[in-house]
Amino acid sequence: MNKIPGGVCAAKGFTAAGVHCGIRKNRTKRDLALIVSEVRGAAAAVYTQNLVKGAPLMVTREHIADGYAQAVVCNSGNANTCNANGIEIAEKMAAITADALGISASDVIVASTGVIGQPLDIEPIAAGVPEAAKLLGDCGADAAEAIMTTDTVKKEVSYSFEVGGALCRIGGIAKGSGMIHPNMATMLCFITTDVSISPEMLNKALKSDIIDTFNMMSIDGDTSTNDMCSIIANGMAGNAEITAEGADFDAFKAALRAVTDELCRMLAADGEGATKLLECHVAGAPDKATARTVAKSVVCSSLLKAAMFGADANWGRVLCAIGYSGADIDVTKIALSFKSAAGELAVCENGAGIDFSEDVAKVVLSESEIEINIDLCQGSECALARGCDLTYDYVKINGDYRT
Amino acid sequence: MNKIPGGVCAAKGFTAAGVHCGIRKNRTKRDLALIVSEVRGAAAAVYTQNLVKGAPLMVTREHIADGYAQAVVCNSGNANTCNANGIEIAEKMAAITADALGISASDVIVASTGVIGQPLDIEPIAAGVPEAAKLLGDCGADAAEAIMTTDTVKKEVSYSFEVGGALCRIGGIAKGSGMIHPNMATMLCFITTDVSISPEMLNKALKSDIIDTFNMMSIDGDTSTNDMCSIIANGMAGNAEITAEGADFDAFKAALRAVTDELCRMLAADGEGATKLLECHVAGAPDKATARTVAKSVVCSSLLKAAMFGADANWGRVLCAIGYSGADIDVTKIALSFKSAAGELAVCENGAGIDFSEDVAKVVLSESEIEINIDLCQGSECALARGCDLTYDYVKINGDYRT
Repeated sequence: MNKIPGGVCAAKGFTAAGVHCGIRKNRTKRDLALIVSEVRGAAAAVYTQNLVKGAPLMVTREHIADGYAQAVVCNSGNANTCNANGIEIAEKMAAITADALGISASDVIVASTGVIGQPLDIEPIAAGVPEAAKLLGDCGADAAEAIMTTDTVKKEVSYSFEVGGALCRIGGIAKGSGMIHPNMATMLCFITTDVSISPEMLNKALKSDIIDTFNMMSIDGDTSTNDMCSIIANGMAGNAEITAEGADFDAFKAALRAVTDELCRMLAADGEGATKLLECHVAGAPDKATARTVAKSVVCSSLLKAAMFGADANWGRVLCAIGYSGADIDVTKIALSFKSAAGELAVCENGAGIDFSEDVAKVVLSESEIEINIDLCQGSECALARGCDLTYDYVKINGDYRT
Repeated sequence: MNKIPGGVCAAKGFTAAGVHCGIRKNRTKRDLALIVSEVRGAAAAVYTQNLVKGAPLMVTREHIADGYAQAVVCNSGNANTCNANGIEIAEKMAAITADALGISASDVIVASTGVIGQPLDIEPIAAGVPEAAKLLGDCGADAAEAIMTTDTVKKEVSYSFEVGGALCRIGGIAKGSGMIHPNMATMLCFITTDVSISPEMLNKALKSDIIDTFNMMSIDGDTSTNDMCSIIANGMAGNAEITAEGADFDAFKAALRAVTDELCRMLAADGEGATKLLECHVAGAPDKATARTVAKSVVCSSLLKAAMFGADANWGRVLCAIGYSGADIDVTKIALSFKSAAGELAVCENGAGIDFSEDVAKVVLSESEIEINIDLCQGSECALARGCDLTYDYVKINGDYRT
């Protein structure tokens, strides 16, 4: 497996575009993305578990029900959620895209992200989609930019890998960066690949992947109404179609994991207002579910997140978050250390504090990527959860998001 | 029922004191509280459900197992939690208090609050308890101050009420104000009353009360390791002992609720860094559990809390928090309004936005107490949850709590 350039355009037969169509007032910010495959491909998606669901998700779910899709259209600046005419507008977005591309509307994946509860005007989209269609090309970066909201950096990644001797490619783009606490789905993430795979196996691969990637990440504990992660596999790599488990399926799953894993790191590091990426590694758990529960509880603690912002080795907050996680464990066995590029520092053994240098702690915790390493010492299962620190800027960004 | 002065000293036979014994470096901050009853009283307590429990809670649970207690000793500045010698120190605190008061150590309720994982030195306490014992008097306010950590105001309240013709009194003090997300218990709260009631009925009253008061409040989603709420009823009011349900028990429960309700309001309003008290009233729920779940999810949303800080009527975040709460409801029926001393503003009906004036919204949300009124329109049950806004100061306070 090798990292390659191209993002969502790395796979054969995929083009993309990102334009400013006018949903956002800032004319320098692209707000409409198109991703298109030359041919129809197998498709799968996972959606937010929030009961309040964006209208685009409901339309996408219907369009993808047959297991196939050919294009993605996504706007930023407005979530098209909690609007009386939401479904109608989302369907129009698909129809406009289908017209511009000469494909079927039922092969269009529709997504929106931004403010909830403000009607989405179809006019800018009606004008923007044909314009974007004309610009389709190796422009994955423009699409990555067009789906950003409060994100400060574009998130795209792509890899090549082999399936049964055929060279395949997979790439993805994603956006965060607040209201991020995915539950069986994610913020917006669009993945493209030229591997040949049946819709059933594609769906299976995606569903199993997100459990340890997107679902193990939290920026602020708020599960969005518009979370969606979709994938289109157009088969143009020419491998023998993957229709069952085995070596080929495993090779694809590994490539998919490489993409989602890296996008998760990017998303967590670019959480709203974040200055630090937090990775909580839990080992020594009696079972996988316990490991996941503990890791996620720790990266979700507002108190710990604020302490990490202040480079304060307040490890008692880690123990506290483990204690209220709901996991059934013996807290008197826990060992804990903080680690970064500046070194590793043990702070707790057998559930109680051990002497450490506050000066060293300050140096370790002043790095931009912090590992919180927990050994529960009561088993052999492990898990990783990602998050970020809680900063003044998170409050600032969210104190007047709409204005 | 009438509000009266006195706090924990309002009830007959109770005295209190608060001194600076030296656990805190700041000599002007009291850090040791004593609350004492002339006679042994029925006692009950509820504790944190966090698996990581402060040593004082374990000692208190043992002391209170027989249903009786006579005194409370509590220090601030150190939680005596996750320390290898925690139990030993907590038992010493009880023994020192018993010696100073001439009572049994097993009648002492012990509590600590402050930093987790730093050994608690017994010396300042050994010197401070006898000093406090000498100062015992109508000093509930000193005790209320001595248990404060990052609280900015003392929290005390007291009421008189009648039981079977006898005039009774009840009062309490409490401290917050971060790591507040009580789960079957609360931060520290000490209640005293001179009503005559059996330990069983006292326990029953306390356990049923907290479900709708302390357990419906959240500052930051972090359930503390040291949460405790205790009550001592010394019977000195002379009413016929309450030993069963009935009018007397109801009168006592109403008085208890008046105390805990007001302390909850004070705690939420004084959440770390808070500038606004948030009260989420949920009506029209199909059942009580649903009403509680929805209300608590809303006051726990970091995004909504930040929006309230910014006086931004971003009601989509309320819908979002309802949607991920886990409650099984029809989100297309929801009506929502914001209300404060400046007026009430409807923002959502049938799950979708309605036109409103942003200028009016800014005025309504700029008050210091905000009601978020949700009508689920699918039943008749209701619930109230309390919280506060998320501010720069929360981050500041918790970025360097230990230093």
